[in-house]
Amino acid sequence: MNVLIVFAHPEPKSLNGSINKFIVEYLETSGHQVKVSDLYAMNWKASIDSNDNVAAYQNKVFQPTHDSLEAFKNHTQSEDIVAEQEKIIWADIVIFQFPLWWFSMPAILKGWVDRVYAAGFAYAVGEHSENHWGNRYGEGTLAGKRAMLVVTMGGWESHFSARGVNGPIDDILFPIQHGILFYPGFDVLPPYLIHKTNSIDEERFSQIQAELATRLDQLASQPPIAFRKQNAGQYDIPALTLKAEIAPGKTGFSAHLEDE
Amino acid sequence: MNVLIVFAHPEPKSLNGSINKFIVEYLETSGHQVKVSDLYAMNWKASIDSNDNVAAYQNKVFQPTHDSLEAFKNHTQSEDIVAEQEKIIWADIVIFQFPLWWFSMPAILKGWVDRVYAAGFAYAVGEHSENHWGNRYGEGTLAGKRAMLVVTMGGWESHFSARGVNGPIDDILFPIQHGILFYPGFDVLPPYLIHKTNSIDEERFSQIQAELATRLDQLASQPPIAFRKQNAGQYDIPALTLKAEIAPGKTGFSAHLEDE
Repeated sequence: MNVLIVFAHPEPKSLNGSINKFIVEYLETSGHQVKVSDLYAMNWKASIDSNDNVAAYQNKVFQPTHDSLEAFKNHTQSEDIVAEQEKIIWADIVIFQFPLWWFSMPAILKGWVDRVYAAGFAYAVGEHSENHWGNRYGEGTLAGKRAMLVVTMGGWESHFSARGVNGPIDDILFPIQHGILFYPGFDVLPPYLIHKTNSIDEERFSQIQAELATRLDQLASQPPIAFRKQNAGQYDIPALTLKAEIAPGKTGFSAHLEDE
Repeated sequence: MNVLIVFAHPEPKSLNGSINKFIVEYLETSGHQVKVSDLYAMNWKASIDSNDNVAAYQNKVFQPTHDSLEAFKNHTQSEDIVAEQEKIIWADIVIFQFPLWWFSMPAILKGWVDRVYAAGFAYAVGEHSENHWGNRYGEGTLAGKRAMLVVTMGGWESHFSARGVNGPIDDILFPIQHGILFYPGFDVLPPYLIHKTNSIDEERFSQIQAELATRLDQLASQPPIAFRKQNAGQYDIPALTLKAEIAPGKTGFSAHLEDE
């Protein structure tokens, strides 16, 4: 398979750097084709601006969505954006590897999403009618591909548990896994999480390698998170609220998971 | 009062630009002192790296948290970071104004948080013992200050409702309001939200101005969101899980709100 790893950590000699090296070597040894977008090494530009459309002209009012769509349609996106979109299209699986900073991804990775996820590519795709509200949440350009998060965090597992002070990690990651990955069509595999990064000794690192190897062996076979598809009859359109008979009375992020 | 507005939109002539202008003028007319960190106009550097410590030397392994703490303690932070920290210290209230991009803040604003929220300043503050786990979530450097989000989004209000496909907006914003604002000590006011940004006509914009004016008049008086304080006896330490007798059986983000 073709695997793209989007990697966001500033230091190759860090725990994240070591994990990234392990993932690449393990996948290559297993016979996969691997590409890495090492955002710090690439000096990735994080902020959307009018330069993202090489056809942009001065004195125009910059409208991020409109401009993104025009650039995508007219093939005037900046080269760095096109290169990343081509890598995604090439990939069967995309792994996003990053440290959790302030309960989200590092800015450089958010900037990869903001810029690479162009209008016409990752959103504003498909018809919007009374039966169908865009090709999104289970449909879209990236349908048929898989994605997985590999996330490190300083906090303890209990801090991110169902009653932990930070909130449950599944909920913290929902805006990413559902809002960024499932939205343009990815099937989203359960994340691989590494806690207490300040106390990783050799024994623990060996354990992480073994667990990761298992997860990497299952990239093609592991069942994805069962998010509900938006246009498959479970949501009222265009309100996009769950129909009354679907998970009656249930609210919040977990209502968007299929009943077990 | 002293009000800092941290503003993240690339186009001054946008809806966000107009709202920013209105907020600044309204606050100044009301007799407040106002500073604006217009991140795009400042060309704010979004990505944490070793240059954030002017004392950094080559061939050292860059450890983001360690380096941030050293720089903060030794007064070797880069000037742009120090300037923002000084503005926060100066402010009684900080307003964060941004468009919701991919269910979070634009990368440039995430990069403001990642870099300005230094170790020793916004985290890694206070003792860690069996009774107290850092000055955070209700305590910290920014205790006594207030913060508020002003957020625009293209989606409809129903899309972000309790059973809406995007998830409830309170939950989408929890990692920001609880994890980024309450964590270093801010009292967090309810957000001001603007939906369906593609269909804002003059009448709607007048309504937004009127609603915002009311909210700005109440900056000092409105009750903050009642997040539970971490070190006030409701959480087991160091597990940082809610004690069994607190909101028994309740899980998820809303468990961290005081009972009504």
